[in-house]
Amino acid sequence: MKPEGTAGQESKELGLRRGFPILELVLRVVAILGTLASAVAMGTTDQTLPFSTQTVLFQAQYDDIPTFRFFVITNALVSGYLAISLPMAVYHVIRTGAAKSRALLIFLDATMLSVLTAGASAAAAIVYLAHKGNASANWLAICQQYQKFCERITGSLIGSFGVVLIFVLLIPLSGLVLTRQRLLPRVV
Amino acid sequence: MKPEGTAGQESKELGLRRGFPILELVLRVVAILGTLASAVAMGTTDQTLPFSTQTVLFQAQYDDIPTFRFFVITNALVSGYLAISLPMAVYHVIRTGAAKSRALLIFLDATMLSVLTAGASAAAAIVYLAHKGNASANWLAICQQYQKFCERITGSLIGSFGVVLIFVLLIPLSGLVLTRQRLLPRVV
Repeated sequence: MKPEGTAGQESKELGLRRGFPILELVLRVVAILGTLASAVAMGTTDQTLPFSTQTVLFQAQYDDIPTFRFFVITNALVSGYLAISLPMAVYHVIRTGAAKSRALLIFLDATMLSVLTAGASAAAAIVYLAHKGNASANWLAICQQYQKFCERITGSLIGSFGVVLIFVLLIPLSGLVLTRQRLLPRVV
Repeated sequence: MKPEGTAGQESKELGLRRGFPILELVLRVVAILGTLASAVAMGTTDQTLPFSTQTVLFQAQYDDIPTFRFFVITNALVSGYLAISLPMAVYHVIRTGAAKSRALLIFLDATMLSVLTAGASAAAAIVYLAHKGNASANWLAICQQYQKFCERITGSLIGSFGVVLIFVLLIPLSGLVLTRQRLLPRVV
């Protein structure tokens, strides 16, 4: 049972505790879609040029480049984690006072944020190279030949970096809710 | 003033609260050295080949590749942040009960972990390319020509990934201390 506190302050705190879990649930569903879209968009990227040239290049697939394979794996992993975290998020909507499961979720979220950032930024480095090339290293901008391939790999980064942003929002907000629970009478 | 609690449990908790801040301080100093070493090692990388060939390549510098510039910037940034965080870590050694500043530090640490992971993994993707090349994209393994350059850029990754590991250790431990403070009588 909860003892009586200062009414105004407490109702404001309770609003944060009720409203945030619902926002969290929505953001997690969006994040699942984002990472899944990224993984699928990258994983199905494949372009065959309609002509053959003297160069070796005539077909481009995402798994020609190991970094893109890493990108697909990290996105699939984070997407799976997010799906598993959904029941926990639902539990937080019902039990707004749950502190330990929220702390656990913050740590797991932070881990997944790192994994996803690693995958997305490694892929971004290669995509940048594909667009611009590098004169010093004699690496050609393959995008000049493989436009469709390049559009696809560039687009697939959007979902991933969007989810990075969602995590960057979710983690401190979740932490804020956790610290506010310290100031409230304990419900657990 | 602190009310009396269960003696054994409390002394164990107090051990965690005394011991961890000192470990944290040491790890932060190590992390400053790690990121600084990475930034300097990468930032001073430069190799001129002792002969000229028919190819365009004859000199390799770290800032020929934008990703390496990003790597130096992120490492310098994290190193600077860590230096600024030191006084706060010292404060935590003295005031083991400080909760708000610890929570703030966890968020800042998590942000810096993401920034550092992004820089390190983007650089790792390019270093991998420099070593292995990519036959499909016709990108040559420049390491065959620039061995000293490649050893240097590969070595500079070590410090960065080491500090990523330190953050991965620090953040959950710091969070653990924070949640344990919830179970203790409040000292603040």
